[in-house]
Amino acid sequence: MQDKGKKARVAAREMAKADSGTKNACLFALAEILINETRSLLQANAEDMRSGRAAKLDAALLDRLELNEDRIAAMADGVKQVANLADPVGEITDMKMRPSGIQVGKMRVPLGVVGIIYESRPNVTADAAALCLKSGNAAILRGGSEAMNSNQAIARCIERALGAAGLPEDAVQVLDITDRRTVGEMVAMPEFIDVIIPRGGKGLVEAVSKNARVPVIKHLDGICHVYIDAAADIEKAIAVAVNAKTQRYGTCNTMETLLVDKLIAEKVLPRLQDIYVEAGVELRGCDRTRKILKDIRPATEEDWRTEYLAPILSIKIVDNVDQAIDHVNTYSSAHTDAIITENLSRARQFIREVDSSSVMVNASTRFADGYEYGLGAEIGISTDKFHARGPVGLEGLTSQKWIVFGDGNVR
Amino acid sequence: MQDKGKKARVAAREMAKADSGTKNACLFALAEILINETRSLLQANAEDMRSGRAAKLDAALLDRLELNEDRIAAMADGVKQVANLADPVGEITDMKMRPSGIQVGKMRVPLGVVGIIYESRPNVTADAAALCLKSGNAAILRGGSEAMNSNQAIARCIERALGAAGLPEDAVQVLDITDRRTVGEMVAMPEFIDVIIPRGGKGLVEAVSKNARVPVIKHLDGICHVYIDAAADIEKAIAVAVNAKTQRYGTCNTMETLLVDKLIAEKVLPRLQDIYVEAGVELRGCDRTRKILKDIRPATEEDWRTEYLAPILSIKIVDNVDQAIDHVNTYSSAHTDAIITENLSRARQFIREVDSSSVMVNASTRFADGYEYGLGAEIGISTDKFHARGPVGLEGLTSQKWIVFGDGNVR
Repeated sequence: MQDKGKKARVAAREMAKADSGTKNACLFALAEILINETRSLLQANAEDMRSGRAAKLDAALLDRLELNEDRIAAMADGVKQVANLADPVGEITDMKMRPSGIQVGKMRVPLGVVGIIYESRPNVTADAAALCLKSGNAAILRGGSEAMNSNQAIARCIERALGAAGLPEDAVQVLDITDRRTVGEMVAMPEFIDVIIPRGGKGLVEAVSKNARVPVIKHLDGICHVYIDAAADIEKAIAVAVNAKTQRYGTCNTMETLLVDKLIAEKVLPRLQDIYVEAGVELRGCDRTRKILKDIRPATEEDWRTEYLAPILSIKIVDNVDQAIDHVNTYSSAHTDAIITENLSRARQFIREVDSSSVMVNASTRFADGYEYGLGAEIGISTDKFHARGPVGLEGLTSQKWIVFGDGNVR
Repeated sequence: MQDKGKKARVAAREMAKADSGTKNACLFALAEILINETRSLLQANAEDMRSGRAAKLDAALLDRLELNEDRIAAMADGVKQVANLADPVGEITDMKMRPSGIQVGKMRVPLGVVGIIYESRPNVTADAAALCLKSGNAAILRGGSEAMNSNQAIARCIERALGAAGLPEDAVQVLDITDRRTVGEMVAMPEFIDVIIPRGGKGLVEAVSKNARVPVIKHLDGICHVYIDAAADIEKAIAVAVNAKTQRYGTCNTMETLLVDKLIAEKVLPRLQDIYVEAGVELRGCDRTRKILKDIRPATEEDWRTEYLAPILSIKIVDNVDQAIDHVNTYSSAHTDAIITENLSRARQFIREVDSSSVMVNASTRFADGYEYGLGAEIGISTDKFHARGPVGLEGLTSQKWIVFGDGNVR
């Protein structure tokens, strides 16, 4: 692994120098090669699927593992989309003259070597490689063992694309050893890896973060809240609360707890209950909620702390915006929380005081996503505060160094 | 320590809400209290000095430990300077309309709880507290045991200032236990501390970083280079090379290795030698250098890797800018490196390819400093790439969250 780290470090230097045209040429070549290699990718994937079925992997995992022509086309499209994004590297900002006569500003530069640790989705291999390359980084990718053959087949495509563009083939190394030790080795070599991004479930993220000596951009839970303020527009409140819960149940930006101001609860909760019940959402409520929605089961302390990822919603009635903010800052996973209100002061207070990576006013939490935010693509959603918060796109894979221009200036 | 962590977390929430006026009032109060308490601060410091002398601390350490009226006045001035800086918290930038109708942007927010681990300079206590408070963070400060009485006396002043401004007194906790265990405990509680900043020598920084589970903003070596390119203006080259080495020897932004293009070496090195020798700087050179400066001792591989912090300079002649960049990226500590040239293309190449936190053209490396860059003050200089690079001011103690405004928008 040390050897791969060294190779990545050398390749990272070359990648940092590569101009946008070269990087884009590599990505367009990769998209084309993926399409041309559809047959061999499907063959490799079929092997993984066979082993997966033999190992009795569950249906959801097999679904994530499976490639087909449409998925390969989507993977190639994703790579082209990244090629079409603006290159963050080299951007110079904030050049200011100082009293000493020097001019000081910042230049955006790659982080260096990015390690990605992910589960059994082979499309992450192409996706993560594209984002790392575009941002001028080298990458070490460690996918799940179930997808080994698929990932290695995609790795061959990436290698060819790198070669075609004259970029170092070590710029993307897809590990062909996937025992658990590799993860431990990756997170323990800060001299060769600048950041680790785990992509997958909470278990993976915790395992990666636990003993990491390399900085980790991590995303644990998505316990998202919508707070319907006393001054909410009822129609907007219903539209958002329904969308935030029911548009998709299994995503991290789905609402898990609905907070409702006591002054508006009787107006809004019965209408919402009708819609949720129709959609098959199970409701759990605090005592005050259950006085209005009499037939639902009680929500426990445990409910406020749970990311259901399922058609279940906990509901709590609060006295005011302060109580709502307090609940959010206590139970939220600092992912995404929204207020529905027409009151400007309370909107400003909520935006300012809620300590989450995305804070919204009159919009569905489901918008918390790199594409919706205009990042073009995302490598993950960070629930940390350090370096990058929320959806992390190309910019999160870069850093800014200081640059100084003088004319022979001395101190 | 867990208990202090919890208190800091609670105080951090209050600090995040505090408006600029309240924070500034606290800092101006602190400056006044420090001056008014000059006598008691000097008494506490005298105890530390007595113990320090009894423990036979070396003269440099005793000098850093000592307070006097001028130093207390300077400490109070420093606090006022921080009060006069713009408040980074709450700044909203990049608000963009998205096709979905939502408006997305970023808001600057405090990191939360900042841990500072430092050595025996009591002024760091006031300085670090001021920066953390102004940036809306809570702080846990752990100073060196030699400065215990001085630090606790300053801590009392900070507490009074917090109280006077109506801010929580737990917003700054100065530890009164300074055994080594406290450091280990601080770096192992990411749930209560968001970032650790060690301020001190390399030994301290390594000890802090080694097992840290909390992100660390760290600064290891300052092995800084000046490269005199073939197209350098000789007078500028000499001015910068002399200043970068001799203005101060013990600082991290002092040049330790001079690189000279072979085409200009014979013109510039003898003149530089005269000045360096006059200043008492010992020169060590590569083989080619020693053909021009015949009486100097050879520089070894070890020299290229050494931060002398002393009147010693290693000199290497290189064939071209590529070799210079290669040497810098191999041996530099990624702190600050400069090129002296009138050639635009080579200046741009050096700026782009040198992977250091500050890269300069025609300016002395000694400018790499928060004050010189216009940050107003600095809490440290980061040689990492993650989160903050180079001089870290108030902005480095903050993060950006996403904010979204809609009008009932759903996905």
